[in-house]
Amino acid sequence: MKAAILGATGYTGMILLRLLSEHQHIDEIAAVSSSRAGMDLKEVDPGVYTALGKKTGCTGGKLVSVDEATAMKPEVVFAALPHLESAKVCAPFFGNSVVIDLSADFRIKDPVVFEKAYGQPPERQDLLDAAVYGLCEVYGDDIKSAGLISNPGCYPTASLLPLIPVLKEFGVDGKIVINALSGISGAGRKAAVNNLFVERTENCGAYSPGKSHRHQPEIKKELDAALGGGDADLFFTPHLVPLKRGMEVTTILDLPKEAASGLNDEAMNSLYEKYYGSSPFVAWDGGRLPQSRDVWGSNSCRISWKIEGRSLMLFSVIDNLVKGASGQAVQNMNIRFGFEETEGLRVYGEL
Amino acid sequence: MKAAILGATGYTGMILLRLLSEHQHIDEIAAVSSSRAGMDLKEVDPGVYTALGKKTGCTGGKLVSVDEATAMKPEVVFAALPHLESAKVCAPFFGNSVVIDLSADFRIKDPVVFEKAYGQPPERQDLLDAAVYGLCEVYGDDIKSAGLISNPGCYPTASLLPLIPVLKEFGVDGKIVINALSGISGAGRKAAVNNLFVERTENCGAYSPGKSHRHQPEIKKELDAALGGGDADLFFTPHLVPLKRGMEVTTILDLPKEAASGLNDEAMNSLYEKYYGSSPFVAWDGGRLPQSRDVWGSNSCRISWKIEGRSLMLFSVIDNLVKGASGQAVQNMNIRFGFEETEGLRVYGEL
Amino acid sequence: MKAAILGATGYTGMILLRLLSEHQHIDEIAAVSSSRAGMDLKEVDPGVYTALGKKTGCTGGKLVSVDEATAMKPEVVFAALPHLESAKVCAPFFGNSVVIDLSADFRIKDPVVFEKAYGQPPERQDLLDAAVYGLCEVYGDDIKSAGLISNPGCYPTASLLPLIPVLKEFGVDGKIVINALSGISGAGRKAAVNNLFVERTENCGAYSPGKSHRHQPEIKKELDAALGGGDADLFFTPHLVPLKRGMEVTTILDLPKEAASGLNDEAMNSLYEKYYGSSPFVAWDGGRLPQSRDVWGSNSCRISWKIEGRSLMLFSVIDNLVKGASGQAVQNMNIRFGFEETEGLRVYGEL
Amino acid sequence: MKAAILGATGYTGMILLRLLSEHQHIDEIAAVSSSRAGMDLKEVDPGVYTALGKKTGCTGGKLVSVDEATAMKPEVVFAALPHLESAKVCAPFFGNSVVIDLSADFRIKDPVVFEKAYGQPPERQDLLDAAVYGLCEVYGDDIKSAGLISNPGCYPTASLLPLIPVLKEFGVDGKIVINALSGISGAGRKAAVNNLFVERTENCGAYSPGKSHRHQPEIKKELDAALGGGDADLFFTPHLVPLKRGMEVTTILDLPKEAASGLNDEAMNSLYEKYYGSSPFVAWDGGRLPQSRDVWGSNSCRISWKIEGRSLMLFSVIDNLVKGASGQAVQNMNIRFGFEETEGLRVYGEL
Repeated sequence: MKAAILGATGYTGMILLRLLSEHQHIDEIAAVSSSRAGMDLKEVDPGVYTALGKKTGCTGGKLVSVDEATAMKPEVVFAALPHLESAKVCAPFFGNSVVIDLSADFRIKDPVVFEKAYGQPPERQDLLDAAVYGLCEVYGDDIKSAGLISNPGCYPTASLLPLIPVLKEFGVDGKIVINALSGISGAGRKAAVNNLFVERTENCGAYSPGKSHRHQPEIKKELDAALGGGDADLFFTPHLVPLKRGMEVTTILDLPKEAASGLNDEAMNSLYEKYYGSSPFVAWDGGRLPQSRDVWGSNSCRISWKIEGRSLMLFSVIDNLVKGASGQAVQNMNIRFGFEETEGLRVYGEL
Repeated sequence: MKAAILGATGYTGMILLRLLSEHQHIDEIAAVSSSRAGMDLKEVDPGVYTALGKKTGCTGGKLVSVDEATAMKPEVVFAALPHLESAKVCAPFFGNSVVIDLSADFRIKDPVVFEKAYGQPPERQDLLDAAVYGLCEVYGDDIKSAGLISNPGCYPTASLLPLIPVLKEFGVDGKIVINALSGISGAGRKAAVNNLFVERTENCGAYSPGKSHRHQPEIKKELDAALGGGDADLFFTPHLVPLKRGMEVTTILDLPKEAASGLNDEAMNSLYEKYYGSSPFVAWDGGRLPQSRDVWGSNSCRISWKIEGRSLMLFSVIDNLVKGASGQAVQNMNIRFGFEETEGLRVYGEL
Repeated sequence: MKAAILGATGYTGMILLRLLSEHQHIDEIAAVSSSRAGMDLKEVDPGVYTALGKKTGCTGGKLVSVDEATAMKPEVVFAALPHLESAKVCAPFFGNSVVIDLSADFRIKDPVVFEKAYGQPPERQDLLDAAVYGLCEVYGDDIKSAGLISNPGCYPTASLLPLIPVLKEFGVDGKIVINALSGISGAGRKAAVNNLFVERTENCGAYSPGKSHRHQPEIKKELDAALGGGDADLFFTPHLVPLKRGMEVTTILDLPKEAASGLNDEAMNSLYEKYYGSSPFVAWDGGRLPQSRDVWGSNSCRISWKIEGRSLMLFSVIDNLVKGASGQAVQNMNIRFGFEETEGLRVYGEL
Repeated sequence: MKAAILGATGYTGMILLRLLSEHQHIDEIAAVSSSRAGMDLKEVDPGVYTALGKKTGCTGGKLVSVDEATAMKPEVVFAALPHLESAKVCAPFFGNSVVIDLSADFRIKDPVVFEKAYGQPPERQDLLDAAVYGLCEVYGDDIKSAGLISNPGCYPTASLLPLIPVLKEFGVDGKIVINALSGISGAGRKAAVNNLFVERTENCGAYSPGKSHRHQPEIKKELDAALGGGDADLFFTPHLVPLKRGMEVTTILDLPKEAASGLNDEAMNSLYEKYYGSSPFVAWDGGRLPQSRDVWGSNSCRISWKIEGRSLMLFSVIDNLVKGASGQAVQNMNIRFGFEETEGLRVYGEL
C-alpha cells in the first residue's frame, strides 16, 4: 500500500516517517514538502533515512511536491500541516484517497465555533459532515468506513479518554476543571523565539486558560456528546513544561449525588474495563498515578483516579506526538483498512 | 551580627549561604552540619566558598558541629533540616537566638492535624503557640517580635499569596482547586533513585493529589483563617516537572454571587494594591500570565488572574528555593531585626 | 528460546527487557533481581510490563532469583550487573548457557592491567582467555562460536568503531586524543547525590581525564591490537553532559607522513566501506558531523571526519544504553545464534 | 554615570540590564533597540523591569532608538549587537563615549584573517588599531585608557585564561588541541529551527571543528602573542550541549622537554599565582576538575589541570553569558573607569 505524508519535515511528519518505515502494510511512502521538494530526505532527517530508504524507491529518496504525490495515487494520505492550510492542500486527495488530517480543520463541525477558535470559517464546510472524529477508542465503528478522518488534538485525546466513560455512565454536577501539562514539541517545528531552548528550559507556566484555548471547544463538544447533549462547563488550562515529548492531564469534577454514592475503585475499574477492555492502547491503575515517561514513544494512554467524597480526580498521560498525533493517525489507518490495530505502534514507553 | 545555618549542605542551606554571603548585616556565619563537621566548605560548595570566606573566619572556613555553633551565640539561627528532626536539633537555640525554622515542625498548630500529615505528634508542642507563621506579606507584624519563626512551605507560599486577599475580601463558594508544578529541588538533596536525572528529565506527573499531600493542611489552615474561621474545601494537587528550580500554581474557585457581580480587572488590581502595595516582592499583572523563569533566583512572587463569570482563576510563580524557602527565611530575618526588607535579596529573575 | 536478564531493574536491564520483548526468537524471559525477587514487574517498570507479559508466563510476571532463573535453563543469559559482582553471580550459567556479560569483568585480559583499573584481580582468571570481546563489527567471527561474550563499554564502542580501521590501514604518529561526552544514564541507576537531577541539569564537566578512566585501558588494548601490537599513546577524557541517553566522541590523531599523503574524503569513504560496508549499524558521512540525537534509541553508530594536513579528526555518536550496552548485547546474541543481525534492534534514531 | 545598551533585547543585552541594574555607579540606563524602540521594557523582560525602573527615568521605562540614546550622551556604551552590524550602529558613539563592543567586529586586527572568518572586510579598519582586546586579566593596563574595548568571545575567554600563562612561561611543542562545550545561549536569541528546545534537548555534537570556527583565529592570535610571536598549531572544536548557560574547555598540549622536566602541581600553582594572584575572578585548584555549574551566573573562571609526562591537560569553566560576554564587559567598564573590579559582578556560581 502507498502512503503520502504531507508536511514530512515537521515533528508529526517526522514521527509518521518513523512509524510507517516499520509498518508491514506500507510499501511505498511519498514524503511531501511544498517548500523543500527535491531535497534529499537524508539531509532532512538522517536518523530515519536508512530505514525509510527501502520504501522510497518511488521518489528516489527525495522529498516530493504535492503534484508528484498526487500522481502516485496513494491509498492513504496523512496531512501533517498547519491549521487552515491543511484543508486546502489536501484538495486533490479528497475522494481519491483516505485522508487522515492531523490539523484542526475538520475537528469542529459548528462553523461559528470554528471561526471563534481559528479566526476564520472552515475552509471546506462541505466536508465537515463527512469527516469522522478519529478518537479511535470512541469512534472506531465510524472510522472503519471513513473517507476523511479528523485526527484529534493532543490535549483532547489525553483529556477525553479518561472523562468520556465517566460522563456517559455517571454524568457530572457543576464544573469540569482540566489542567494539562505539555511538552514543547506540541508547538511544532516553527522557528519562534518563544520555543528556543534557552526560553523553555528551566521555565514553565500556564497559557490560554479557562475557555480561551483552541482545544477547549474541541474537548467541550465531545463532553457535551458524552453527556447525551449536555452543556459541559469546561475549564481547560494548558501549561508548557520543559519536556521534548509528553503530556499529563489532571481533571477534577463532581459526580451527581446518586452516581457518587457507589463510587469506589472497583466501580472505576469496571467502568474502564467496559469501555476499554478490548483496547490495546488504554491502561488504567487506580493504585499508581501515571508519569509521562510511562508512555514516551508509545501510542498508549495510561489512566488513574482519586476519589474524594463525590469529587473525582482523573489523571492521564500520553506522548503528545504519538497517541496525541502521529501514532493515533496510524491507529486510525489500521482501523480503517482492517490491519491489526497495533501494527507499527508500541504499547510501552521508552526509558 | 552572627548567623548559624543548620543543614548547610542541603539545597536550602546552600542557598542560605549564598544569600547571607552578600547580606550587609551578617558578619559571621557558622555553617553547621552534624555529619560533616570539620570538612572544608570548599569541598562542599566551591562555587560559594570564595565569597563566604571573609565571613567564616570564626570557623576557619570549615563546617562546624551544633555544639560549636551554640558556643558562637548566634543572634539568628536558620534551621534547614528535615521535618521531625529540626525541632530536636534546634533545642539549644530556643530562647537564646531567634530561630527561623524552614522545616514543617512548627507550621501546623493542631497536633492532631500534624500527626495525620507527618505520622507522629509535634516534637515540641510547648513551642507551637509561640511560633509565628512566617508568611511575610501576611504576618509581618507578628514576625517583628517573634522568637521562633516557622518558615512556610514552598507550595503554601505560592498558593496563599494570590488567594488570601481574594478570600478575605470576596469569600468563596464551593471547592478551591489548586494545581501546582514544582521543580525537583523541592525534594531536597537526598540520594534517591526517584530524583535521579535519568528518572526526572523528560518526565512529569502528579503525586499526592487532592487532600493527601502534607502541604494541603498547611494551606487549608491559612485559607480557613482568611475566611474568618471557615472550612475551605481545598483540593491541592502537586506535579513534578523537570526544572531545577521554579514553581507555578494554577488555582480556580467560584466567588459568592454578590461578590462576583463587580468582579473585573480593575477590582483585582485594587485588591492586590490594597494587600501588597507596599510589598517589594509581590507583583501582579492581569494582562500576562507569569512564567516560572520570571522569578528564577529571586524572592518575588508574580501573580495574574482570569475571570470567567463568577469563576476566578489565579496564577502565581515563585522560585521554590528562594521565596519558597531560603529567601523568605532571610526576608523574615530582615523584618524581625528591622533591616531593609530587600537586603540580600533580589526582586528580579535570572535569564 | 529462553533468556535470563540478571540485573533487570537497572537501566541496561530495563532496556534489555524492552528489546527482548519485541525479539521474535525470544519466547520466554526470566527477569532476575537478587534484591527484589518476587516483586511484580509491573511495579518495577509499568511502561514495559504489558509488552513483556506474554513472554513472562514462566515467571508469573514477577522478578525471580538467580536460582529460579538457573532452573529455567535459559539458552542465553544477559548479565547487567555491577563490575566485580557479575563474574560471581554468573557462575551457575558458565558452560550451560551462552553468557553475554555487560560488566567489565571479562573485558581486560591482562590481570595486572585489570587490577590497576578495578582495584582487585579479575574474579575468574580461568575464563579470561575464553571470553570474546563483543565488539560486533570487529570480532564477529569469534562471536559466532563464543560461550562467553564480554560486551564492550559504551566509551570504548563509540571510540573504537571510527578508530580501528584508521589505525589498521594508516597507523598513527604520536598521541591519540579522545574527548567524549556522555549522558547521565552511563552512571547507572544507583542512588547517588552526584547523579540527582538538580546536580546534573545545567551542568557539565570532565572527569577521570587522560589516562585515569577505567575505559582507557580497555580502549588502549584494542588500539594496540589494531596497530598490530603497538603501544598507543592514548589520552581519553570523558565529560558528563545533561542528556538522559547519548554519547559523542571527538578524536584527533596524526597519521604517519606516507599514509597522510593520499588522505582525502574519498579514501575515508573507501576505508569505512571496506570495514563496515556490510554492517547494518555503522553509517558514515564526511559531509555532516553527527549529533547524538541521530541515533537516540537505536543500535547505530554514525561517523564523520575532518582532515587537516596529516591530522585527522574523527566524530562518532551512539546511544550509550543501546549500541553502548544492551543493544550491542542483543546484536551479540543475534550473531552468536545465527539470527538476523538487526532482529529486535533499530537502525534509526528517535526524534 | 549614564550607560547605553545597544541590543537590549538579546541575551547579552538582557544580562547587561540585570548587571547594571545593581551597579552602584550607573544611575541611568538607555536600553536601545532599533526594531522595538518605544516598547515598554516590562513587555520585553518582566523579570528585570522592577529593578531597572529606577534607572530608566530618562527613558520612561521604554526601549529607545539609537538617536535617542545618542542624545543622552552616555559615558559608556555597550554594543550587544550581531557581528558586522555593530561597528556600523556604534558610529555616533566613537570618540564621544567609551564603547565596549561585544561583537567580533574589532577582535581581529588582520583584515585578511577577519575576512576569511566573517566573509567581508572589517567595517571600520580605521579603528582596529585603537581597539583594545578586553581580556581583562591579560590587557588590564591597556584597558584603563581605552576608548574602544573589544570584548572577547566566550570560547576565547575560557580557552585563553588557562593557556596564556602556560605558553608564556613554558612554551609548547606541537599541536594545541582544545575541545569546548557550550550552552545554547551562545547562539543568541535568534529564531532558528536549530536552536529550538526540541532540537537541542537530549542532543549534543561537535560543529565547525579544527580550524573552521570563527573563534579559532581569535584564539590563535592571542596564543601566537603569548608565544612571543610564534605560530600556534591550534585545533579548536566546539560542541553544543543542552545547557542554557555554561561553558567547559578541555585542552591538551605537550611542553618542550626542558620546560616539562620540572612540571608538577606546585609549579602550576605558582604559575597561576603569578599571573592571577590579584585577580578576583580567576580561581584554580589542581585537585578538582571544575564543573560549569561552579560559575553559573558569575564572572569567574575556574581552572584545573592534569599532568601526564610532558603532556599537560587544562580544564576551565565560565558562564558564557557573563565572563564570556556581558560580565566581562562590565568588568572592562570597571577597569576603564577605575571602579572596584568586582562592582556589580558575582564571584560565586548559583546552585
